[in-house]
Amino acid sequence: MIVKGKRDFPGALLMFHGSALEQIWPWILASALISSLLTFGLEHIWTGLNLTTTPFTVVGLALSIFLGFRNRACYDRWWEGRKLWGRLINVSRVIARQLITFVDGAPADKIPKINRMLAAYPHILRQALRGEDQVADYSELLNETTLSRVVASRNRPTMLAHIIAEEIRDLYRAGHIDPLHLPAIDSSLTEIAGIQGACERIKKTPVPMSYTELVHRIVALYVLALPFGIVEQVQDLTPVVVVIVAYCFLGLDAVGSQIEAPFDHDPNDLPLSAMSRMIENDVLELAGETELRAEVTANKGILN
Amino acid sequence: MIVKGKRDFPGALLMFHGSALEQIWPWILASALISSLLTFGLEHIWTGLNLTTTPFTVVGLALSIFLGFRNRACYDRWWEGRKLWGRLINVSRVIARQLITFVDGAPADKIPKINRMLAAYPHILRQALRGEDQVADYSELLNETTLSRVVASRNRPTMLAHIIAEEIRDLYRAGHIDPLHLPAIDSSLTEIAGIQGACERIKKTPVPMSYTELVHRIVALYVLALPFGIVEQVQDLTPVVVVIVAYCFLGLDAVGSQIEAPFDHDPNDLPLSAMSRMIENDVLELAGETELRAEVTANKGILN
Amino acid sequence: MIVKGKRDFPGALLMFHGSALEQIWPWILASALISSLLTFGLEHIWTGLNLTTTPFTVVGLALSIFLGFRNRACYDRWWEGRKLWGRLINVSRVIARQLITFVDGAPADKIPKINRMLAAYPHILRQALRGEDQVADYSELLNETTLSRVVASRNRPTMLAHIIAEEIRDLYRAGHIDPLHLPAIDSSLTEIAGIQGACERIKKTPVPMSYTELVHRIVALYVLALPFGIVEQVQDLTPVVVVIVAYCFLGLDAVGSQIEAPFDHDPNDLPLSAMSRMIENDVLELAGETELRAEVTANKGILN
Amino acid sequence: MIVKGKRDFPGALLMFHGSALEQIWPWILASALISSLLTFGLEHIWTGLNLTTTPFTVVGLALSIFLGFRNRACYDRWWEGRKLWGRLINVSRVIARQLITFVDGAPADKIPKINRMLAAYPHILRQALRGEDQVADYSELLNETTLSRVVASRNRPTMLAHIIAEEIRDLYRAGHIDPLHLPAIDSSLTEIAGIQGACERIKKTPVPMSYTELVHRIVALYVLALPFGIVEQVQDLTPVVVVIVAYCFLGLDAVGSQIEAPFDHDPNDLPLSAMSRMIENDVLELAGETELRAEVTANKGILN
Amino acid sequence: MIVKGKRDFPGALLMFHGSALEQIWPWILASALISSLLTFGLEHIWTGLNLTTTPFTVVGLALSIFLGFRNRACYDRWWEGRKLWGRLINVSRVIARQLITFVDGAPADKIPKINRMLAAYPHILRQALRGEDQVADYSELLNETTLSRVVASRNRPTMLAHIIAEEIRDLYRAGHIDPLHLPAIDSSLTEIAGIQGACERIKKTPVPMSYTELVHRIVALYVLALPFGIVEQVQDLTPVVVVIVAYCFLGLDAVGSQIEAPFDHDPNDLPLSAMSRMIENDVLELAGETELRAEVTANKGILN
Repeated sequence: MIVKGKRDFPGALLMFHGSALEQIWPWILASALISSLLTFGLEHIWTGLNLTTTPFTVVGLALSIFLGFRNRACYDRWWEGRKLWGRLINVSRVIARQLITFVDGAPADKIPKINRMLAAYPHILRQALRGEDQVADYSELLNETTLSRVVASRNRPTMLAHIIAEEIRDLYRAGHIDPLHLPAIDSSLTEIAGIQGACERIKKTPVPMSYTELVHRIVALYVLALPFGIVEQVQDLTPVVVVIVAYCFLGLDAVGSQIEAPFDHDPNDLPLSAMSRMIENDVLELAGETELRAEVTANKGILN
Repeated sequence: MIVKGKRDFPGALLMFHGSALEQIWPWILASALISSLLTFGLEHIWTGLNLTTTPFTVVGLALSIFLGFRNRACYDRWWEGRKLWGRLINVSRVIARQLITFVDGAPADKIPKINRMLAAYPHILRQALRGEDQVADYSELLNETTLSRVVASRNRPTMLAHIIAEEIRDLYRAGHIDPLHLPAIDSSLTEIAGIQGACERIKKTPVPMSYTELVHRIVALYVLALPFGIVEQVQDLTPVVVVIVAYCFLGLDAVGSQIEAPFDHDPNDLPLSAMSRMIENDVLELAGETELRAEVTANKGILN
Repeated sequence: MIVKGKRDFPGALLMFHGSALEQIWPWILASALISSLLTFGLEHIWTGLNLTTTPFTVVGLALSIFLGFRNRACYDRWWEGRKLWGRLINVSRVIARQLITFVDGAPADKIPKINRMLAAYPHILRQALRGEDQVADYSELLNETTLSRVVASRNRPTMLAHIIAEEIRDLYRAGHIDPLHLPAIDSSLTEIAGIQGACERIKKTPVPMSYTELVHRIVALYVLALPFGIVEQVQDLTPVVVVIVAYCFLGLDAVGSQIEAPFDHDPNDLPLSAMSRMIENDVLELAGETELRAEVTANKGILN
Repeated sequence: MIVKGKRDFPGALLMFHGSALEQIWPWILASALISSLLTFGLEHIWTGLNLTTTPFTVVGLALSIFLGFRNRACYDRWWEGRKLWGRLINVSRVIARQLITFVDGAPADKIPKINRMLAAYPHILRQALRGEDQVADYSELLNETTLSRVVASRNRPTMLAHIIAEEIRDLYRAGHIDPLHLPAIDSSLTEIAGIQGACERIKKTPVPMSYTELVHRIVALYVLALPFGIVEQVQDLTPVVVVIVAYCFLGLDAVGSQIEAPFDHDPNDLPLSAMSRMIENDVLELAGETELRAEVTANKGILN
Repeated sequence: MIVKGKRDFPGALLMFHGSALEQIWPWILASALISSLLTFGLEHIWTGLNLTTTPFTVVGLALSIFLGFRNRACYDRWWEGRKLWGRLINVSRVIARQLITFVDGAPADKIPKINRMLAAYPHILRQALRGEDQVADYSELLNETTLSRVVASRNRPTMLAHIIAEEIRDLYRAGHIDPLHLPAIDSSLTEIAGIQGACERIKKTPVPMSYTELVHRIVALYVLALPFGIVEQVQDLTPVVVVIVAYCFLGLDAVGSQIEAPFDHDPNDLPLSAMSRMIENDVLELAGETELRAEVTANKGILN
């Protein structure tokens, strides 16, 4: 996520990294070259070919509405991803609180052990969502048995949540949790399962491919055909118009694509590393630990 | 669901299977032929007929907005279908966890039996949603009595959920579930009933027919009448313009239609088979079974 | 709800019953006549009057956006109505399950009696929503006392839900329901109250009248004034353009109006009769009854 | 809320009271006068000033989209207000039911007393939302102590809900409510607090002022400047075009404003009086009272 | 939040403070100057350069839709922020009520102490959201131990909520809360954690930077290039058109930006100070305290 400075009008104009331009400049360049060639050809060789501007007005409208719709869908995915991690922050704090409120008389090392599992969970979920495998990032938070069970499983976050549930069950069977209060903790664990499932949904199910290809094809067709429609009126400036229009349509398409998969490493994606560390520190602080790892900070204006 | 490769700009342009073009090319061809004939006729026989471009701008706008609205409605149905199956994944994991947390002292084969029912449920629901009848796909997961009750019933997934509820009730009456914890399991069963009901709703209630027919009629009318509006200006290139416009409007209409019924077998529909198998394996693994069936993988880039 | 056949491109073009055209053809005819007279007048009598096309482009745009907004609002009402009846299907199944899970040792005829009340509820709600009064449709499901209390009350579905609650309370006071489990059943009854209230809301509160009248007035003004804007360019074909534009705007308005009140008897309204019967059969089958009334089927392609 | 008759096409065209026209006719008149003067000036004095229609097309588009957005926001407020009162209807019925189901052996006058408080609550909330102070409307439903505590408090509906909670607590402490069932009633009281808070939110927080002023300014600028853009083409008919455009934009703005504050007394606002009386009668009827006040009916087609 | 007077049509036209104009007038001025220079240049030096109006119509459309989308996203953030604080008002009242209903026989000073913590909470949350540090604003509501623990912590509102949970746990362990009722209070504390987490999400995660920069760049490009497209038609009035268009696009952009961060101090931001004080007074009044601090009132028409 880009965090540098205030996003005032003039400053935002000069940004390159993380902007749509960074991604689309090769296509803009290509459209400049092709439209220049076409303009030359239409002015000197195939004179008289004129599609007029009517199709471009009508199709431009449909395309704009469709781009707007796709942007909305991508933005909703990104914002839902952020909400899910917000709920993960909340439920981690809530479980830490419930362990204090509802558990009574447990062995001294039991609660800290569960808290450290809770602190490891966001790291494991993040790595699953990003396709990473850096066990060192959380290995100190788990004991050996737990670590080996987690690493060996098909779905690591599910397995860790399962082990936490087993710990809770053991506390309950040992009489440290009132049977009346077990359902409250159980519903917090259900919340974690719900968050993880929804994150996996966003990761595994992109916007339907047919939407993406149709919007790409119409944009390409539009930009390629535009010189045929305007060269009689605009003449030598035709490539300028094509570049302006291409920048707008390709740019609007690109900003949507950038956030379609919000758990990736693009500059505008969600700062999962920072949020994982924050959850870790929140939970460990509530558990009374004092040596915390440093918060993740922005690197060159981008929080990872 | 189409999963092959990255959806970069150039790659998406070359795709055919699963794209809108696969579905609409006959209509595009027809519009090319008809508009060519009309162009010939308007240039040489019925000269002087000119609707001008005004109606096409105004109607094109209303049509675009309406197509955008219909696309949004279809996308929402598709995404809600995906959310429902995501919730089914979650609640299956949750019930498997609740059986471990809340059930105490049950006969050794009881919990695995219920877990195998949970593993069979998504297959039965999928077949009901797709109108299939392949009992072999889940017959090994159920014992004979259960299987025959399920197969004989009016609504198979409802009956299986009902049998699971009976099993839970028997565990409760035999004293293996604390009366305090029965409501938590009951609300998980209510969640399954809610998911199934919502899936049936999406399957049985398409977008109102009057929307579909109106949008089809306006598109057809638009494409047919377009030559009368532009032939004076565009002349011989009229069919080119008609084809471009027809591609856009028919394509936008088609991508919506493709995902309107998200549980069908279209390339962009939801991968219910893969998700059913995943739920099966998740639940059986948590139940300690080690021989799992292979995950469903994509076939020619399409996950079923 | 229209269910006949597949909604393929060519088939949908030939449909009349349930389409927008069925509703708006008198207005289309009127606009054809009036615009023909105006065209004649403007060409031969009041020559020189020309509003140009500018106001029609600008107003057409605002009108399209507004029609799209109203369509969205109507569609949301229709879809919410469908969701509510889907929830009614679910909660009926859930209560039937809860009666099996949570009730223990009740007199043999008690549960079937409550199940028959549950089976009667959707019929009574449907009739309240549609302003019907066909007691015969559900009289066999209720005993005489209940029937007379229901028929005599100000709000029949509320009264039946109230009587069901009394039955549940009697079961509880007689010791057949654990006090721990009463809240779960109570929250199912709350769900029924919520569904009924929301259905009444949709029925009693249409889209604000000022929206409806404004959109009608602008459409009428637009179609009436259109000849003044295009007759200089389009000349004798003016009525054709007017008819095309009128068809689009009136049609888009009509499809919204058709589903604004989703519980009525329009061809595109919700099939409440079929859903009531389905709930009845679901509940009675779970209660072990074997003689069920036939499912409601589509009549001339329309499910009621 | 306007309820008179069916909202068919011709009928709606003749309505004045409650329509947008009632509110905006002075501004339409003003725009007619000013544009007539400007037209005269531009044709005879400042000839040659021509902004062309381009800015009006582009700005008209942005304005339409923005008006559509603001209308959506206002409609959402209105519809949320209606949903909240629908939930108040539900929760009143639910509490009345819970008092019957969960309370056992209370003194004979206790339940009716609480029911009468529930019947008074919507009147007090309505008056708070409308800034009214008509104690007579509910004074007969409350005993003297309660009435004086309510009237003296900073926030009357909060105080009444608080007193109801005290009554419930007293019933519980006297042993008439199982401790297991107190949370169910408590969550109904939480629902009332949530409804009241949301109503206060809608009342106290209008759409941001900057939206309202920007949309008003652009509309005013647009209508004032329009003659400069079209007078060369439209000439003497310029004021007609201005009036048509002004009617559309001012009308779309007005219908949004009318329902922005849905608890006021505008013709399209919500019928809080009728709903309050309905809740009163529902609750009192369930409590066995037979002398009910008459339902509120529509006055000149408007339900208050 | 701007509260002064009624927002009638003429009044809103004259407002400056808090309007979009206050923020964008330097850019409007700049666009007037630059377009004047360009107009002069294009009329006298670089004659013949003409982009025509086509690109501006097409791009203007895409830009309008995109601005509408961004406005919607910003408005949703603002309105969600308001809803969150509305829920904070509700849950504060609810906890105050639950302390009365569920707590029995606690020491006389215990409940008031917790109530005063509840009264301090919104002030601490507000200061965290606004980056302020005015301990004096709430120091009288907390005893010394609590105050020092709160001030010393990494996240002050989390710590205070944690201390409240400890107090509740102590009441429970001392036997003043039925174990049956602890979950109800616990879920209210979960609600507070959820509200705080969601507020932090809105504060820390703005609309993706790539959206902001793309929309700024297209607006800047559009306004700069506009003279090249219209100078042949509009000639000397070109700067007037540019200013009108710039006002619309920059204004629409500005109203969105103003409310993107709804917890800041902009005139249109949420009145957190007033709402904090209201919660404080509501809770203290219910706790029986009579000396309340004055409500926060609007200053120059703006409620802070």
